[in-house]
Formats: sequence, C-alpha cells, structure tokens
Amino acid sequence: MKKNKRVGMLMDELLQNPCRLYESKHFCEKYGIAKSSLSEDIKLINEILHDNGSGCIESIQGAGGGIRYIPGISAEKIRSLQNELIEVLSDTTRMLGGKYLYTSDIMFNGQFVNGIARIFAQKFHSLGADYVVTVETKGIGIAAQTAYMLGLPLVVIRREAKYSEGSTVSINYFSGTNEHIQKMSIAKRAVEPGRKAIIIDDFMRGGGSLKGIQDILGEFDVETVGIGVALESRLPEKKKVKDYTSVLIIDDIDEENHVISVRPNETLSE
Amino acid sequence: MKKNKRVGMLMDELLQNPCRLYESKHFCEKYGIAKSSLSEDIKLINEILHDNGSGCIESIQGAGGGIRYIPGISAEKIRSLQNELIEVLSDTTRMLGGKYLYTSDIMFNGQFVNGIARIFAQKFHSLGADYVVTVETKGIGIAAQTAYMLGLPLVVIRREAKYSEGSTVSINYFSGTNEHIQKMSIAKRAVEPGRKAIIIDDFMRGGGSLKGIQDILGEFDVETVGIGVALESRLPEKKKVKDYTSVLIIDDIDEENHVISVRPNETLSE
Repeated sequence: MKKNKRVGMLMDELLQNPCRLYESKHFCEKYGIAKSSLSEDIKLINEILHDNGSGCIESIQGAGGGIRYIPGISAEKIRSLQNELIEVLSDTTRMLGGKYLYTSDIMFNGQFVNGIARIFAQKFHSLGADYVVTVETKGIGIAAQTAYMLGLPLVVIRREAKYSEGSTVSINYFSGTNEHIQKMSIAKRAVEPGRKAIIIDDFMRGGGSLKGIQDILGEFDVETVGIGVALESRLPEKKKVKDYTSVLIIDDIDEENHVISVRPNETLSE
Repeated sequence: MKKNKRVGMLMDELLQNPCRLYESKHFCEKYGIAKSSLSEDIKLINEILHDNGSGCIESIQGAGGGIRYIPGISAEKIRSLQNELIEVLSDTTRMLGGKYLYTSDIMFNGQFVNGIARIFAQKFHSLGADYVVTVETKGIGIAAQTAYMLGLPLVVIRREAKYSEGSTVSINYFSGTNEHIQKMSIAKRAVEPGRKAIIIDDFMRGGGSLKGIQDILGEFDVETVGIGVALESRLPEKKKVKDYTSVLIIDDIDEENHVISVRPNETLSE
C-alpha cells in the first residue's frame, strides 16, 4: 500500500474514534509497517490537523501508551463559529417575550453542535472525566457530540422519573429562572460512585439547573470537574455555579427596541 | 504542498462536513491545483473510504454539481456493530419487568450512536429529505448524529408544549405500548409546509409514537419519506407504520427464564 493511502486510512480510523487510545502495535500490524514509519505518518497527520485547525494526535510514550486523536478547533475557527452564531441569534423574530429566545433550531444544528462540542472537547479532554452529563432536552445534541469526541458515555438526566430508567434518584431544586421548584431524576445504574463528570447544557441564566445536576451527581459521590454551556445570560451576575465555560454571552434582550445583544466569550480564542 | 498532505486536508474537510456539496473550484483555488489533480485526489480518497468501509465521495457533474461526502458503513462493519449491540442488550440485568429493558446507556453511547447513524445516513441520503425528526428523549442522540451525517436540521418534538418553543401545535395519539393517550407538541417555526422528513427513534413496539410523529408532521403538510429505529420489538406483528428500517429485532424478553432474545436485521448487511 502506498504511503498516501495508508495515511488516509489511518487518519479516517483515528478521527472516527476520538480519544480512543490505540497501541502503536495495532497500526504497525494492520499495515505491516515499522514503528518509525508509523511515527512519520502520525507526524504528517498532525501537520494536516494543525493546518486545518481540527485538533491533534497525542502520543503517549511507555507502557500503557499509544496514540489517540484529540478533537480540537483553532482560535480562528472559534471566532468564525461565534460570529455565525451571533448572526443567527440576533434575529429578533426569535424573541418570545419574557426575555426568552427560540433557540431549538440552533441547538440541534449539526454544524453548530459539532463546532461547540469541539470547543468543549478541546477544553475538557485532560480532566480525567468518566462521563458527560446533561439534563433533557435542548442540550442533548451538544452533550452527545461532546461525549462522542471525548470517548465518554453520555448520561441524560430526566425531568420526570421514567419507568424505562429503572430505579432512579430524584431531587428538587430551585430554578431562579422560573422562580419555582423543579425536579430532576437520574437512573441509579447510570453512574458509579467516586467517578468524575463534565456537565454540558445549552443555556445558563442563574445556574440553577447546573447546580441541580451537580447536587444530584453529588448524591452518587460523582464529582463535577468541568461545566460547559453554549449560551450564558449576563444577568443575573451572581451564578449558582462557578468555573464554567460558555461560548456566547447574551448581554440583553431588549424587547422594546427589538435588539438582541450577544457577544463571544473571547477568552476561548485567545 | 505535497500530495499526501493535501489529500489528508481535503479528506478532513469533507469528512467534517457530511453531505455538504462543494464546488470543485473551492478546492482547486484553496490548494492551487488543476481539476485533474483534484479528480485524482478524490479517487484516492474514495479508495481509502471504500477500504475502511466509511462511505464515499459522490461527484455530481455539470452546472450546480460538485463533490460531497456521503457517510456510510460496510456490510462487515454493520454485522460487527449488530453483534456488539446484541451482546450488550442480552445482559439480563437490563430487565425492568413488564417486558421493558434499560437501554439509555446504549442509546447515548457515542460509538453505537455513530454506527447506527451511519446505517441510516447510508440508507436515507438519496431521499431528498429536508429534516430529520424525532420525539424526545432517548432517540435524540441517534437522530442528531443522523441529521449531522445527512447535513440536515434536526427537529425534536416535545412531549409537553414548552414556552421556549414559541407557538406550537399539539396532537394526542394512542400509544399501544402503554395503552393510553399520549401527547406530543411541535414548534410552529420548526418546519415549513411541503417539505420532507426522515423520522428516527430509539425503539418501536407497535409504532404508535412513529404514527403520532407522522400525523403531527402531516398537520404541516410535511411528508415522511423514511423511518429508522434502532430497536424493534417483533410483537405486535402489526405495526402502525410501514416501510421502516430497524437495526435489531427483539424477539422475546422472557422474564421467567431470564433470557433476552435479540437478532440483527440481516437485510441491512446483504
């Protein structure tokens, strides 16, 4: 097999299995090549990914080592994604009243979801998490893609305990947004005690839902090591969670003058 | 730039944008190459994808033509995915009683989701659909990935009309599974009249939910052109929808003898 074909086949396999650690042996045997040739191929793939702003191949030396694809996204691509998102979000027909915006189409748009998930995967891949967790419904697209890119299982917390979830644990929490008590429910067999989780959601206003997720995971002794949200509302300034990463910040939804003010989280592309 | 690097960069861009039609000009200008060199590169990428069982690059000649990546999966990979799924599904600790199985972990497992979505994308890419549609919650992972692979928007039908969905249309339908009336609700701005949809869901017993989705789409004059479900229950034999594609068939959940009988839909890998 010629080198350019082999590099393409290698790249396709690595990219389809994000964060999966492959022993070098796997590819050396598959393609009948020496370790030095594989290293050259990986070097070339890294150049390709770097130039495309698509992440990198990580090489881990020694016993238990190997190579794996870490999805990523360049600062330039982040800025361009943020600008596209700002353009679609600024469409005032999205205003629903009461400072709500219609965003379902954005949260389930494959290209947006893919870009946002790459941002989170790049940010969170080294935290040693065991799960990605979200609460239904609108964050599931982004959370599922983030989990796939991190090679982790996705746990979806339900609003109501469903029979099909088996035994569940539920909590009530205070949602600042709606000023009322809400409920969430997690399958007992979804998580194991002592593990770590990354929480992903579509939107954060006061952080009540995210705090609820943290609390319900805490019931299982599962620690939250990272939080990512696509959209953050600037107000209220005081959030119920800290150390979160947002992609965009909504400064204001001015219903009287028909203006939606959204800006990028610029720290992402610095 | 050397050919093997260019081929890798081309492949990365095409694979990250499934079903997106690129004018040949786009790549010729980007890499400063003649159309004949691009054709050679595409031929090589097609060999790579074919040998890996990952789909193909489609070339459309003439005005309005171009090239695009159609995700796919080889018969061999389908069989191996089905066998893996059968193994995890046959775990009798999944039995919840009343012939229910716990499957949330499977339906949100990135590798399973990716494989199942590839099957549906390969099957449905030429139907001219405008949307992929599902009803919350457990099918969203597979539906979102299928939509991404088809380059289509995903529409998620809600169980309850949410304020954040804006104006909605709701229907009541009869669920044979639970022998009671259920409700579903779709945002008015989610679909446009006269369009076509592919419905994706995690599970079908009698087909009541799928029929409900078809009916609610029908209210908007949206035609269902394909239906894909991950898991199908053999019983009841009479389904409320026809022309669906399932990946696996559950023949029986024998609670007395602790046996779950699952088999592959063999027509997928013929």
